[in-house]
Amino acid sequence: MMVEPIDPIRQRVADSFAQMPLMATLGARLAAVQDGRVSIELPFRREFTQQHGYVHAGVVASIADTAGGYAALTTMDEGASVLAVEFKINLLRPAEGVLFVANAEVVKSGRTLTVTEVDVYARDERGSEKLCARMQQTCIAVTDRPEAQSDG
Amino acid sequence: MMVEPIDPIRQRVADSFAQMPLMATLGARLAAVQDGRVSIELPFRREFTQQHGYVHAGVVASIADTAGGYAALTTMDEGASVLAVEFKINLLRPAEGVLFVANAEVVKSGRTLTVTEVDVYARDERGSEKLCARMQQTCIAVTDRPEAQSDG
Amino acid sequence: MMVEPIDPIRQRVADSFAQMPLMATLGARLAAVQDGRVSIELPFRREFTQQHGYVHAGVVASIADTAGGYAALTTMDEGASVLAVEFKINLLRPAEGVLFVANAEVVKSGRTLTVTEVDVYARDERGSEKLCARMQQTCIAVTDRPEAQSDG
Amino acid sequence: MMVEPIDPIRQRVADSFAQMPLMATLGARLAAVQDGRVSIELPFRREFTQQHGYVHAGVVASIADTAGGYAALTTMDEGASVLAVEFKINLLRPAEGVLFVANAEVVKSGRTLTVTEVDVYARDERGSEKLCARMQQTCIAVTDRPEAQSDG
Repeated sequence: MMVEPIDPIRQRVADSFAQMPLMATLGARLAAVQDGRVSIELPFRREFTQQHGYVHAGVVASIADTAGGYAALTTMDEGASVLAVEFKINLLRPAEGVLFVANAEVVKSGRTLTVTEVDVYARDERGSEKLCARMQQTCIAVTDRPEAQSDG
Repeated sequence: MMVEPIDPIRQRVADSFAQMPLMATLGARLAAVQDGRVSIELPFRREFTQQHGYVHAGVVASIADTAGGYAALTTMDEGASVLAVEFKINLLRPAEGVLFVANAEVVKSGRTLTVTEVDVYARDERGSEKLCARMQQTCIAVTDRPEAQSDG
Repeated sequence: MMVEPIDPIRQRVADSFAQMPLMATLGARLAAVQDGRVSIELPFRREFTQQHGYVHAGVVASIADTAGGYAALTTMDEGASVLAVEFKINLLRPAEGVLFVANAEVVKSGRTLTVTEVDVYARDERGSEKLCARMQQTCIAVTDRPEAQSDG
Repeated sequence: MMVEPIDPIRQRVADSFAQMPLMATLGARLAAVQDGRVSIELPFRREFTQQHGYVHAGVVASIADTAGGYAALTTMDEGASVLAVEFKINLLRPAEGVLFVANAEVVKSGRTLTVTEVDVYARDERGSEKLCARMQQTCIAVTDRPEAQSDG
């Protein structure tokens, strides 16, 4: 799916996504950007699996964390950048499939902190999807010190 | 640091680690295996960074989750394999440095569930280390169905 | 709202709830029990507040944890009892209001582990509700050892 | 154990603790306050138990959350008050005993956010202690709006 950045928020997220080397390394795509919602897709690749042949939980967390952060960013002031403070993820089923879709949405948007929820679905060859992970994430808006994760 | 698998537990962890494609992809090394403790090291590589040039939180989580799982495995029965049920990670400082070290230890070992804590340190060129993330993780021992993450 | 235990699942939850001293101490009520969903209500009482006059996060967590556990129980085998393994809660807004409603639902039900999500709403005098907390919880089915929390 | 508030930080924590109705309701005591560390004790009382006769996880979370928040407060500027943003707690063993001790310490102190870890021990009649819960908590310093939890 192509991203068509037709407004400032989408452009901002698309620009930032394009500057994130990990997403290119994983082969992840920005699939959708709306106000308070972002989806990222990851095609299966063997080099990102764990010992049983499923996508590693850390890779699932990578796309979920990124989707959540960008969902939060869509609700922040224009000059702000976003950092994840923390997240918790439940690994509900094996990450087994041909495509993994992380759908993030903002639960609560605040001046400083924004909380998101991200569902990661595993899609098989027939297009059937199963929820394989759920993340609850806390993000912080950083205006003056983009170099600081958390608040250093 | 070389891993010298001198006992069954170390051998088991080393064998499983060697079969995990993601660890090779990341260039991660199994640095230490003791009863209830496992360390994994990850040299910095630009392709695993986020938009500010630091290692992505999902990559930090990948080595932490793996170290925690293997620490749990050292306390499980010989036939068991281990799966992470869930984890929560606080990103305390930017993952900035030349080497990242995930030190996992078992907090509570149980028949079915094992809880671990993992600290991830960022080491700079001069060898100085800073704690950049802390994870609290729940693992499950899987005896009969190695293909099932969580419990299906 | 009265609970009318019209089937075995509702009866089971209502019986267990009635045997939980903390719920009586807090003045909490079992408001709804369905397959995979449980709601608990807590009227505001000053003795359960923190230093700013809002209901303490631990009390919010108490009704959320209980609602989540019972939602999980509705999906378990008849002989099983349920224990929370862990939970994570985001405190989204001050717990300010006249009534607090914890709505739990099962996200993923498994043989051993069940994951729930619980939203806690604060209702003011005019009946308007705001989401004040969200919990993500992992529960375990215990069949043989009701005395063990986690798995001992 | 008596608290002797001999310096401004201890006094500040002791004053705030004394204004928290829930702590009095639970019969909890502020047992120790140091720079970056706070302990709270809770004697067993049946009215705070769950259906198996152990102290309810929400009550364990109440003293852990409070201890963590005050540990964070000891590292904050004098005018600041503290709010918990979120916490995650693993319930490791049944909360069974005569006394429960929540020992909190600051993991990382920042300008805006502070992360703490809290261990809760259950002490039996013979004075033997077991770790029954571990919490990882994120707190925020609030300077201007003490009425806001999170940053709503």
